[in-house]
Amino acid sequence: MCLPNWLRHYQSTWWVGDLSAGVVVALLLVPQGLAYAMLAGLPPATGLYASVIPLVAYALLGSSRQQSVGPMAVTALMTGAAIAPFAHAGSVQAVHYALALALLSGLFLLGFAVLKMGWLAHYLSQPVITGFTAGSVVLIILSQLPPLFGVDGGGRSFLVQVPHLIHVLPQTHAPTLWLSLASLLFLWWSRGFLSASLQRLGIAAFWANLTTRLAPAVWVILALAATAYWRLDWHWGWHTIGVVPSGLPAWSWPDLTWREWQTMLVPALLLGLMNFVQSISVAQSLALRRGERIDANCELAGLGLANVAAGLSSGMPVTGGLSRSAVNAAAGANTQMSSVITALLLLPVLLFASDVLQFLPQAVLAATIVIAVSSMFGWSEMRQIWRYDRADGLAMLFTFLTVVLAGVAEGIMVGMACSLAFLVWRSSHPHIAELGRLPNTQHYRNVLRYPEVERLPEVMLLRVDESFYFANVQFIEDDINRRLQQQPEVKHLVLVLSAVNSIDASAFACLLQWQQQLQPQGVTLHLAEVKGPVYDRLRQNDFLSRFQGQIFLSTHQVNEYFRAE
Amino acid sequence: MCLPNWLRHYQSTWWVGDLSAGVVVALLLVPQGLAYAMLAGLPPATGLYASVIPLVAYALLGSSRQQSVGPMAVTALMTGAAIAPFAHAGSVQAVHYALALALLSGLFLLGFAVLKMGWLAHYLSQPVITGFTAGSVVLIILSQLPPLFGVDGGGRSFLVQVPHLIHVLPQTHAPTLWLSLASLLFLWWSRGFLSASLQRLGIAAFWANLTTRLAPAVWVILALAATAYWRLDWHWGWHTIGVVPSGLPAWSWPDLTWREWQTMLVPALLLGLMNFVQSISVAQSLALRRGERIDANCELAGLGLANVAAGLSSGMPVTGGLSRSAVNAAAGANTQMSSVITALLLLPVLLFASDVLQFLPQAVLAATIVIAVSSMFGWSEMRQIWRYDRADGLAMLFTFLTVVLAGVAEGIMVGMACSLAFLVWRSSHPHIAELGRLPNTQHYRNVLRYPEVERLPEVMLLRVDESFYFANVQFIEDDINRRLQQQPEVKHLVLVLSAVNSIDASAFACLLQWQQQLQPQGVTLHLAEVKGPVYDRLRQNDFLSRFQGQIFLSTHQVNEYFRAE
Repeated sequence: MCLPNWLRHYQSTWWVGDLSAGVVVALLLVPQGLAYAMLAGLPPATGLYASVIPLVAYALLGSSRQQSVGPMAVTALMTGAAIAPFAHAGSVQAVHYALALALLSGLFLLGFAVLKMGWLAHYLSQPVITGFTAGSVVLIILSQLPPLFGVDGGGRSFLVQVPHLIHVLPQTHAPTLWLSLASLLFLWWSRGFLSASLQRLGIAAFWANLTTRLAPAVWVILALAATAYWRLDWHWGWHTIGVVPSGLPAWSWPDLTWREWQTMLVPALLLGLMNFVQSISVAQSLALRRGERIDANCELAGLGLANVAAGLSSGMPVTGGLSRSAVNAAAGANTQMSSVITALLLLPVLLFASDVLQFLPQAVLAATIVIAVSSMFGWSEMRQIWRYDRADGLAMLFTFLTVVLAGVAEGIMVGMACSLAFLVWRSSHPHIAELGRLPNTQHYRNVLRYPEVERLPEVMLLRVDESFYFANVQFIEDDINRRLQQQPEVKHLVLVLSAVNSIDASAFACLLQWQQQLQPQGVTLHLAEVKGPVYDRLRQNDFLSRFQGQIFLSTHQVNEYFRAE
Repeated sequence: MCLPNWLRHYQSTWWVGDLSAGVVVALLLVPQGLAYAMLAGLPPATGLYASVIPLVAYALLGSSRQQSVGPMAVTALMTGAAIAPFAHAGSVQAVHYALALALLSGLFLLGFAVLKMGWLAHYLSQPVITGFTAGSVVLIILSQLPPLFGVDGGGRSFLVQVPHLIHVLPQTHAPTLWLSLASLLFLWWSRGFLSASLQRLGIAAFWANLTTRLAPAVWVILALAATAYWRLDWHWGWHTIGVVPSGLPAWSWPDLTWREWQTMLVPALLLGLMNFVQSISVAQSLALRRGERIDANCELAGLGLANVAAGLSSGMPVTGGLSRSAVNAAAGANTQMSSVITALLLLPVLLFASDVLQFLPQAVLAATIVIAVSSMFGWSEMRQIWRYDRADGLAMLFTFLTVVLAGVAEGIMVGMACSLAFLVWRSSHPHIAELGRLPNTQHYRNVLRYPEVERLPEVMLLRVDESFYFANVQFIEDDINRRLQQQPEVKHLVLVLSAVNSIDASAFACLLQWQQQLQPQGVTLHLAEVKGPVYDRLRQNDFLSRFQGQIFLSTHQVNEYFRAE
């Protein structure tokens, strides 16, 4: 069971850290909630609602002690992309779709938790996640350009948005642009240089870093106060986020038809999967530093419950965010109690501050989003992957391009398909090495890499570096037949199966057939280093009685045997 | 290039065999062409047209000397299934779709030949082909029940056809049923017992077998003659195939709209793939007996050209058939000249016999189809695959059920998806063996299978039986962490990479991270038996400088090293 033990064994010394972290995260979460709701094309309140009950829900089941759950950039982007074809941004219908998305993705995750399917996350490879994130960053920044320039948005697709922007750029609203540039400049500077400047002024590193992390929240509060006090929205024509209704998050149920629910199924599955992958990677990197362990199934349960709670309490889908969780940890969070405190602190904001929030300029929020996501792009990681392996690099590139040109859901699917296709392609063209004996050892290596190895003239030792299965058995046969033609003196072909972990039904049939084809050429087929599980299967299916060659325990035995002959 | 050399080096002794085989196959091909056209829901003539020019086209490029190309059962079934949603059986529109299908599938195959993509066939595993064939047999037999009972057909889908048949069975037409039963009985008897009976009468085995193979053609001719002479279609109400227009196959071009062409793309791709898989397996089994080699790309080219020729000369899609090719070989075919002779012999049939063919009862053709396909079901093969491996068995079962319940195209796709999914699943849950030294050798095996092996207490040797990649690296880590918890005395963890053929970018990152996690537990990670290609990649990506453990050449070196310590 996933019920965590932090509450039962709560130590009084933990309070200070949890309380301060709770306050700090609450300060961050209010502007983030508003910004990511805007990014998803939802009314601002859905972002705040998602920051109350879901946090408590995750605290109940989640496996990470320092994870901070709530609205996140990529999640907001995916939510917006899933909803856009069916409802206008900011409409009541859009909210219903978002609630359904949160609810369904939460149910998927809970289902996976019950079925112990935490391993699902492993099927998204690093290159696919990197390409996906980079593509999302491009889409997110693109979507924030209209509020930054004070022009109308042109939809979510790259191919629609770019020509639209070029078209409307002459209508840029100058006062908005100035605010945007000031915001971007301040946020960029504070992220890169504020901490160092403060430390040069003699402030301790801890406080300097914390101030830096809170700088976006401070800037948002300043912009909000200035706009509200001088009514700059009137005077300078800044677009603000509009009225946020006062009141606590209410019980909700998405008002959709059966068919509308169905359209959300696949997006919800992909969203849930992506949220889980993000969340578990954050949780793992936090746990690593404290020597704690993360249970993938509990993480599924916690995140699933949080999303169901979001769907039932008028909130948008949520997940764990890296930067916010890092702030939580840095500010001293010892347990999920800090998240509970954050949730409690959001209640007065929702009750009393909502009249004030309406004066928050959209451009400021857009600037915080752009600066927050631009660090997620991961240039160096992409370069590394590209250099490491071309297939991994191509999977990453295809994922990136599909996300940008076609969409986020398509990107995940293309990415997974690519990485599986490359996997199959690689295993269907295995490396085959001819072996020889390293002098004075019982160790056998590739003759091409170790030219000093000893060989017997009539015996060919071949190590096939892949399991035998339907897609590669013909390739292996063809390759070895070619080698036999080049070395007609060979009478004994020994397959060294040290890298063969299984032989499937197709390969089994081919192997028996191949043995017969080799006979007229005067070549006998032998096997060596057959692994236990493979040997068992061969034995159970009458291979041994039909096989004419010998089966050797080790390669060295082969050598001894034929040398004796 | 694929132009075969049989024509240039034609030997005069080959004539006799080629001529007799050509005559025999022509005798078979006329009823088969009519029957398979009926099975595909096309006018009978399309089956005969497909038996002229396509045969010559294959003779030009195809790689098999004895393959007999022409209409085939599974091909006809797939053609019918692809056409059925868009055109009524027997209509002019259906013919246009069939021509488009032949043309497109031929172009796909020619394209694959140019791109040297003969390896495509390997991605259809044996279990999937077996399940697909068995499902097709069920569908084919089901589709022939209405003509056998003399009732109306109810469509091609299993779920529609079965209730329909139950509904219309009371309307069975008795004279038709008697003809069907007589035909089935004779064909079944001749296939199983005629040859033995003839040999008991003193006839040589060769002639007895040939007569047996021609028995269906003889029965068809008898039924045709009797019906025409006594006008049994009038008197007993037998349904006949109807008028076959006299004349040679004419140049044709499918008269379809752009959108209609598009709907045929995916069916044509699947049909082409399946035709190629059938054809190459027939060609290979024939070549095997004569010690000839089949070039997969030439087979693609030959079959592709044959289908393009079919589409351009009013014929249905074609492929190589096992039973007909076997007859061709048995009757003495030495080269594709026998197919050219067959094609020439079909010309007078088309010109002069077409007035007679119209009296051929449908029930007789249906009986020949049922008997021909029932031997393709492959019970023993299915049992074998199921016993060999449960995953292979499930892939086969899913393919079979999908073909029967959803359709042929769906069946191929589900089958391929299944076998790939099982492949990935298997490789993502690798077998991990702890190794020990077999006494007095330098060979290391699984401690569970060889309890006598020797181990060093502080050293754990683990052999992971799979390449490291994104989908299994977490599983491997978790499994090994569990083992380390059970054996806290271990200080050196040695991964024996004899079965690790590659390490992808995700696994590379995990490996470095894992090493750091092991440090606080006092465990050092080492590697042994790293293969050349893997070692190269690690070296190129700064692994060696970041790796804290040692890299050993062989497992025995590990043992020597730590014993010395």
